[in-house]
Amino acid sequence: MRYFSNINTKTNYGNRGMVLESDINETNNYYLINNIAVIYKKPTPIKILHLDYNTNKITNAFFETQSTLDYNGVYKGRYIEFDAKETKSKTSFPLSNIHNHQIKHIENIINNDGICFLIVRFVSLDKTFLLFGQDLLEFINKEDRKSIPLSYFIDKCKSIKLKYSPRLDYLKIIKEFMEVK
Amino acid sequence: MRYFSNINTKTNYGNRGMVLESDINETNNYYLINNIAVIYKKPTPIKILHLDYNTNKITNAFFETQSTLDYNGVYKGRYIEFDAKETKSKTSFPLSNIHNHQIKHIENIINNDGICFLIVRFVSLDKTFLLFGQDLLEFINKEDRKSIPLSYFIDKCKSIKLKYSPRLDYLKIIKEFMEVK
Repeated sequence: MRYFSNINTKTNYGNRGMVLESDINETNNYYLINNIAVIYKKPTPIKILHLDYNTNKITNAFFETQSTLDYNGVYKGRYIEFDAKETKSKTSFPLSNIHNHQIKHIENIINNDGICFLIVRFVSLDKTFLLFGQDLLEFINKEDRKSIPLSYFIDKCKSIKLKYSPRLDYLKIIKEFMEVK
Repeated sequence: MRYFSNINTKTNYGNRGMVLESDINETNNYYLINNIAVIYKKPTPIKILHLDYNTNKITNAFFETQSTLDYNGVYKGRYIEFDAKETKSKTSFPLSNIHNHQIKHIENIINNDGICFLIVRFVSLDKTFLLFGQDLLEFINKEDRKSIPLSYFIDKCKSIKLKYSPRLDYLKIIKEFMEVK
């Protein structure tokens, strides 16, 4: 589900996650320029098997799985961390999208009072939701299901409408969340 | 000044930054296990020039400069970001250690109410200090000097003593800072 923005070729990667990621990157850039928040995508972790010390060139390496979430940063002093997920399903969001070590990480962030969430896009329905980490953990603990139904998102989550600028104003929801708490 | 912990060889890299980094990693692990904070070192950004799509193996890539600081995370809900720097000098800390885009990034973090600092170790003196981003920016704006003298650290900064566990309890200073504000 990750778009390797650091790959310097014109190859097509099947566009997995590309549109949502580009919406988020554009939004984060808007937040940065307008001094609203500083939020970055973390570099993709890479395991290096061989490095040529004369040229400092990496000649053998592979991608590692991120054990945390992809984006983090600061909004009004608060710690923000989230992941962006796309699904082609029209009915539910498969939990196989989230690894066990990421679940543990979400717990750790919440226990330390950080703000943690997923931005989930149902590509075929053109709908994007913000799912708070707390709700995700509660769902996983309560339910045996291997996916979260669309109806859950409609009932429990705020949807994020696409706009011209910023593209995907997810911090509007976070602002409300912080004011309520 | 960075130790590439993801390199899977036994080669010696001149030990640049290794001891301080290992102290910090140990400390962060202590914070994580004891549910005090969640702070990670960001992956080293890598520019990929060639990826073999059949094997998913990276065969040509090189390290990029981090445009942000190396560590970030959450402590009591607040956003924390910092860098670890070692110097062999006995008299001053050279500002060439910090890139212009990192200075800009420190400004952005502070403007968004994040907590930003450097952990600076004078290796030959066996002394480690915590330099707040605000003080760093003030020094750069006021002074023409290309290095920060040791006397500045002694007068203006808190020193961090090495302990058994946690090795380098820098959050003690951050806690006091948060209580004063």
